[in-house]
Amino acid sequence: MADAHPFSGEPATTREAIMQATFHALREHGYAGLTIQRIGDHFEKSKSLLYHHYDSKDELLLDFLEFMLAEFEQAAPDDDLPPREHLDAVLDHALAAKLPDDQREFTEAMVELRAQAAHDDRYRDHFTRSDETFREEVASIVRDGVNAGVFRDVDPDDVASFLLTLVNGAMNQRVTAEETQTGDVREEVEAYVQSRLLADE
Amino acid sequence: MADAHPFSGEPATTREAIMQATFHALREHGYAGLTIQRIGDHFEKSKSLLYHHYDSKDELLLDFLEFMLAEFEQAAPDDDLPPREHLDAVLDHALAAKLPDDQREFTEAMVELRAQAAHDDRYRDHFTRSDETFREEVASIVRDGVNAGVFRDVDPDDVASFLLTLVNGAMNQRVTAEETQTGDVREEVEAYVQSRLLADE
Repeated sequence: MADAHPFSGEPATTREAIMQATFHALREHGYAGLTIQRIGDHFEKSKSLLYHHYDSKDELLLDFLEFMLAEFEQAAPDDDLPPREHLDAVLDHALAAKLPDDQREFTEAMVELRAQAAHDDRYRDHFTRSDETFREEVASIVRDGVNAGVFRDVDPDDVASFLLTLVNGAMNQRVTAEETQTGDVREEVEAYVQSRLLADE
Repeated sequence: MADAHPFSGEPATTREAIMQATFHALREHGYAGLTIQRIGDHFEKSKSLLYHHYDSKDELLLDFLEFMLAEFEQAAPDDDLPPREHLDAVLDHALAAKLPDDQREFTEAMVELRAQAAHDDRYRDHFTRSDETFREEVASIVRDGVNAGVFRDVDPDDVASFLLTLVNGAMNQRVTAEETQTGDVREEVEAYVQSRLLADE
């Protein structure tokens, strides 16, 4: 989740321009190499604006994560799909076999940011909320499927927690180990959906 | 995986003493706060020994990860259990509902170390191998179960990759977000084992 990058167009506001500069600097330098100065290198307006708005690199990054989460929440993907296809679309997106290079760099940065949560409560609060957003999205799809009789009478929250954990694991693994097995994981998730979720015809 | 801590007894060799000091310093300071100096604070012998053996904190940490992996490989847990019970034991251990405080601190440090792999190939090589070790252990249990007719005719490698991803996700999540849902994940894994793996009676 939160691996989309809504930064292809021209930024409409100063905040968007700051977020876009942060995105590019994060891709280029990763968390450890990032400084407000380096974010400024990707920012067309005066760098003093950055220092005016943010006291530290972490404050800026936390605002950036907030911005990305709001983008994710607004996107509300494929809401008109039926439950089975909707779940497939979410899983296809989250467990895609191969990441394009630009998304890989971004995922690397997100994994580094998430690791900050191990010792920084502000990051921890953020990722608790962003996990919750993904979990609720999946639980709502599963609930629809149960109500429609497409899925068995499973606990939507358990299924969503399970799939969230799997997606977080895949996102982490794919940038911290050689990517050899992600395709197999997607296949086994499909087997899980079929054997555990799908109601008998 | 690699969240056991074989450092309760007296170290038998200098290397073990260095590893034990690294373990305690890592728990206390995390990756970012760690220095060879601080590892030395937990080391009874001369600190110059540390500088003699290791050129940098990362070299020492990579050796530490190697040491932990070897410990994990030697442990070979519960090899005499039948496949179903063996798999349960591995999953119970990896997805325990609540981490004791000392194991939590250590898991936090492991998650931070793993995040280094996003931009450091040496860490990436290590975690690729440690993932492989866990994956092979699980695949071998599943293969035994398929051969014994306890499990269905599943692909042991797909199942192992799937469970590895889940375990990595759980390990990451439990120290980077509020721990609210791990119990549910264990329950849903049990449902996966029952619906997907267990052969019909």
